[in-house]
Amino acid sequence: MTSTEELDFEIMAREPRGVARCGVLRLPHATLETPVFMPVGTQATVKAMTPGELEEIGFRLLLANTYHLHLRPGEELIAQAGGLHRFCGWNGALLTDSGGYQVFSLAERRKIGPDGVRFQSHIDGSLHEFTPESVMQIQRDLGADVAMAFDECAPYPSTPEYAAEAMDRTHRWAERCREAHAAAGGLAAGGWPQALFGIVQGGVYQDLREASARRLAALDFPGYAVGGLAVGESAQERNNAIDAAVCLLPADKPRYLMGVGTPEDILDAVARGIDMFDCVLPTRNARTGQVFTSAGVLNMINARHARDLGPIDPTCGCAVCRSHSRAYLRHLFKAGEILAARLSTYHNLSFFHRLMADVREAIRQDRLRAFRAEFLAGYARGKEQDE
Amino acid sequence: MTSTEELDFEIMAREPRGVARCGVLRLPHATLETPVFMPVGTQATVKAMTPGELEEIGFRLLLANTYHLHLRPGEELIAQAGGLHRFCGWNGALLTDSGGYQVFSLAERRKIGPDGVRFQSHIDGSLHEFTPESVMQIQRDLGADVAMAFDECAPYPSTPEYAAEAMDRTHRWAERCREAHAAAGGLAAGGWPQALFGIVQGGVYQDLREASARRLAALDFPGYAVGGLAVGESAQERNNAIDAAVCLLPADKPRYLMGVGTPEDILDAVARGIDMFDCVLPTRNARTGQVFTSAGVLNMINARHARDLGPIDPTCGCAVCRSHSRAYLRHLFKAGEILAARLSTYHNLSFFHRLMADVREAIRQDRLRAFRAEFLAGYARGKEQDE
Repeated sequence: MTSTEELDFEIMAREPRGVARCGVLRLPHATLETPVFMPVGTQATVKAMTPGELEEIGFRLLLANTYHLHLRPGEELIAQAGGLHRFCGWNGALLTDSGGYQVFSLAERRKIGPDGVRFQSHIDGSLHEFTPESVMQIQRDLGADVAMAFDECAPYPSTPEYAAEAMDRTHRWAERCREAHAAAGGLAAGGWPQALFGIVQGGVYQDLREASARRLAALDFPGYAVGGLAVGESAQERNNAIDAAVCLLPADKPRYLMGVGTPEDILDAVARGIDMFDCVLPTRNARTGQVFTSAGVLNMINARHARDLGPIDPTCGCAVCRSHSRAYLRHLFKAGEILAARLSTYHNLSFFHRLMADVREAIRQDRLRAFRAEFLAGYARGKEQDE
Repeated sequence: MTSTEELDFEIMAREPRGVARCGVLRLPHATLETPVFMPVGTQATVKAMTPGELEEIGFRLLLANTYHLHLRPGEELIAQAGGLHRFCGWNGALLTDSGGYQVFSLAERRKIGPDGVRFQSHIDGSLHEFTPESVMQIQRDLGADVAMAFDECAPYPSTPEYAAEAMDRTHRWAERCREAHAAAGGLAAGGWPQALFGIVQGGVYQDLREASARRLAALDFPGYAVGGLAVGESAQERNNAIDAAVCLLPADKPRYLMGVGTPEDILDAVARGIDMFDCVLPTRNARTGQVFTSAGVLNMINARHARDLGPIDPTCGCAVCRSHSRAYLRHLFKAGEILAARLSTYHNLSFFHRLMADVREAIRQDRLRAFRAEFLAGYARGKEQDE
């Protein structure tokens, strides 16, 4: 068990012959079980959902995006509102990313220097600069329970030379983040303690991932992320990078795999010792009619659902599956109704939430491998049907 | 009190020196108080809302559109699902319009004959025909608690000659609707009794409105609508048309003013003896950032709300005003988030629901005129501020 003022992480169960584990993570605004999936609330809202619905499904921890919120509406307004929790009416805990990923994927005309990154907003072209210190300040103003150190997410593919250069910069920035965070007393603007996680980089190069994990572990963060993955690399490359990092990170601290992923990816990563996940997949795909079910991903716009009066997933007990049919949902999509996005987002998030609960139970029962095989068998069948 | 198998309407309070009244309307799926506002669920959903939220606000009666549902997904599927209530998961009562208004405003290449109207779908150009008999059949399949007779809504302006011609056709169609409805035992496909309302037409011509009301009253419908208004005429013309119709309609039957309107219009019409209203205004305007408040209609996208951490309306107790600020709502609109439409729709419908409750209370206390003056005074002030 690791316990600091800002974060408690207690491991409750471990696989006897593996590295997967179940834990309890205590943050200023919520206590939750891991492995956990965090819905993504990019712009101070999980798209199409209310905070009340997220709580109803069972979520206690959301991710929000520093880059987006800095550009609009700005951290100053959010601090005035008493922090992001109050601004968006969310009673649970919040993790904010560092903006690193968005600066390198969304922003325009970025210029990387030793101090940080200058860039133009993708919204209005305005000029901004992110430094380790400014990113800490923004996350402090947002009032996140968990803040992330500013990092450089190198593109895929990158040469080993460039991946090493980006990694070194990330390490120097991590130190500066640590200092800036400590200088502010480790507190969010709202007065509560804030945990700062370091981010392992190094691209798909295992030696770099090992070096990065070692270096960050030495900085003694209360939690660690594995960043820079899910950017186009193969599953094999990703799994190797995760393995290289995980075995050198402190065993008693939470590990967060950023931006991952599909149910298959999550199952892979849990088995490799990952505790935390975030991904836009359930919310983004929902809005295009893709729903996750025990029988695979189905496209609700498909004509074969037009007269199907059964639920999206007969094995799902979510509020949408209890009340609405595939035929109704398909009608809403065909008619371009907002309710289509609402119902399918609610269902998809419920699916991911239940998947994590099932994963935790499987770990506790030491049957994660069997659970994964059963899950994927049904899941693969459905995929074929829909094509 | 008028009581038939399909509908009870009991007048509980009348203005001593006016024609406004409070009533209780009992329908197969709900009992509700009048004057009542019905949210519009055009395509089997009130845009951006769930049935549960509508019930939470306090609505017990929604309107749905025969024209839209016939074209997509079709009444056959809805009948298979057990009717529109079950198809969309709504436990309250439903009124379906006759499709007349949409055929004359949305459909393409319409051709009016004595038997009905041939037209092309505005969605895919497919050919359709509405006759009094087919419209009755569709509404029977949809399973509405209240069905409307098929009518012709003449455009504004129309010559007296054309308005009379359209009115005569509407009367002949009303008789045929009555017969078709009786031939089916007055029952919806789901087996419950269905009330059929006649629709007074006649444009802005008071003599025609009087003739129409007389003719329909003779057909002895359990309720009556005043149709063909809110199509561009002046408030004076509308009020005169309402007065002409109302004084010749049976005093003990519910009166429904179709497609109206603004809070001002509703207050005008309640004072003229109208019991039921529907309008897309609260839902449609919500999606463009227009919110209704006790201080007038405000545009939430306006920069003056950018840093306003107060609620949309400090006098409103709805779930949105209890939890969210103007600054947050404006941010959601600027960011193009679905939640913007959700929250403002929820608030606007709450506003209309409360307006009707206040109107009923004012009638019971015999102070409708004073209530109207107070309401409009605050409402007009806000409008100035926002411009």
